[in-house]
Amino acid sequence: MRLRNDPEAHEKLKIFDNYIQNPFEYRGKWHAYFGNNNPIHMEIGSGKGKFIITLAQQNPQINYIAFEKVPTVLLKLVRKIPDGGLKNLAVISEDAKKLCEIFEDGEIDKIYLNFSDPWPKYRHTKRRLTAKPFLNIYERVLKDNSLIEFKTDNRPFFDFSLEELKDSKFIIERFTYDLYNSDLLEGNIATEYEERFHGLGTPINKVIVRLNKK
Amino acid sequence: MRLRNDPEAHEKLKIFDNYIQNPFEYRGKWHAYFGNNNPIHMEIGSGKGKFIITLAQQNPQINYIAFEKVPTVLLKLVRKIPDGGLKNLAVISEDAKKLCEIFEDGEIDKIYLNFSDPWPKYRHTKRRLTAKPFLNIYERVLKDNSLIEFKTDNRPFFDFSLEELKDSKFIIERFTYDLYNSDLLEGNIATEYEERFHGLGTPINKVIVRLNKK
Repeated sequence: MRLRNDPEAHEKLKIFDNYIQNPFEYRGKWHAYFGNNNPIHMEIGSGKGKFIITLAQQNPQINYIAFEKVPTVLLKLVRKIPDGGLKNLAVISEDAKKLCEIFEDGEIDKIYLNFSDPWPKYRHTKRRLTAKPFLNIYERVLKDNSLIEFKTDNRPFFDFSLEELKDSKFIIERFTYDLYNSDLLEGNIATEYEERFHGLGTPINKVIVRLNKK
Repeated sequence: MRLRNDPEAHEKLKIFDNYIQNPFEYRGKWHAYFGNNNPIHMEIGSGKGKFIITLAQQNPQINYIAFEKVPTVLLKLVRKIPDGGLKNLAVISEDAKKLCEIFEDGEIDKIYLNFSDPWPKYRHTKRRLTAKPFLNIYERVLKDNSLIEFKTDNRPFFDFSLEELKDSKFIIERFTYDLYNSDLLEGNIATEYEERFHGLGTPINKVIVRLNKK
């Protein structure tokens, strides 16, 4: 079910400490923002946030960035942050096309893409978050040797993504067409969407790739 | 600090549902014991249990076996199991030498070795849980293609283990001499011992190997 758009979402977000109003001003300064030199992991398209909030709670020694374009969805996410806040989580409402304006080259240590919009129509190919132009962006903001972890229930989108990755600087380390019957399952954090679709019996695809800039 | 031995520990364990009094009778029947076909992951030398209990809570779709020789230590572990129990956790007090009498070939899907006793004296080499005779045992009880994850703060023991592994059917997939400054950190569950020694600044070594029976 899609959320009804809240025209005031952007305004409402401002009261949350984890929300970054102007992320562009932190370019090259994200470690200073977090106040430590811990690695920075980012989820692009964080949706309602169960995944990234759970990770941030389980891994206090890692900084997390929840990147989500739609302010109404992001509002759901920030409202889930437990009382007392999470110092290792920053929340950004922007378009992934602008990643290079928000992060310096090599500033990010890992990217998660979970159940991104498959944009099934051919003319929308470029909007898919695993399309070549996006991989080129990830290549820049990621440190060399970093990982991207990508999950989707949409098999054509998964196949498309594997093809795009083959032709990139990302080397496929592991992949499965059936996450819940694979040894990638342990430690898996299901997103809200994943819980629903896995519950209906839909197989979940997952691939882990590593950046090799040379 | 070592625990004072409790001569009645074995007796006291019997009141806990998760404790398996006679594990030998379940050989080849562990999936029946758990009542499902989920993978079975085992920690050998579970100590006070924080690691395996956390894993069992986070991954209800995986079965866990806590293997620990010393009943007094195991008593600490079972007392930590939250009220209402954990249906996916079985607790065994036995010697790791007997693994093949307790598990059929290929019955186990993953083994964790955390901060095993390094047995530094040369004449005790054979007691180290990564010594060749133990690797041969793991090779049997593990399904082909399964993982062993091994952590230790003891560098000579780690080096010894890498040597033993090189010469075995286990292929080294990843390793680090400094877990807390590596990309193996995310999702790491610190044992009680690890928290203490990492807190004192001791680097933690970790290796992940995969069984290749061919």
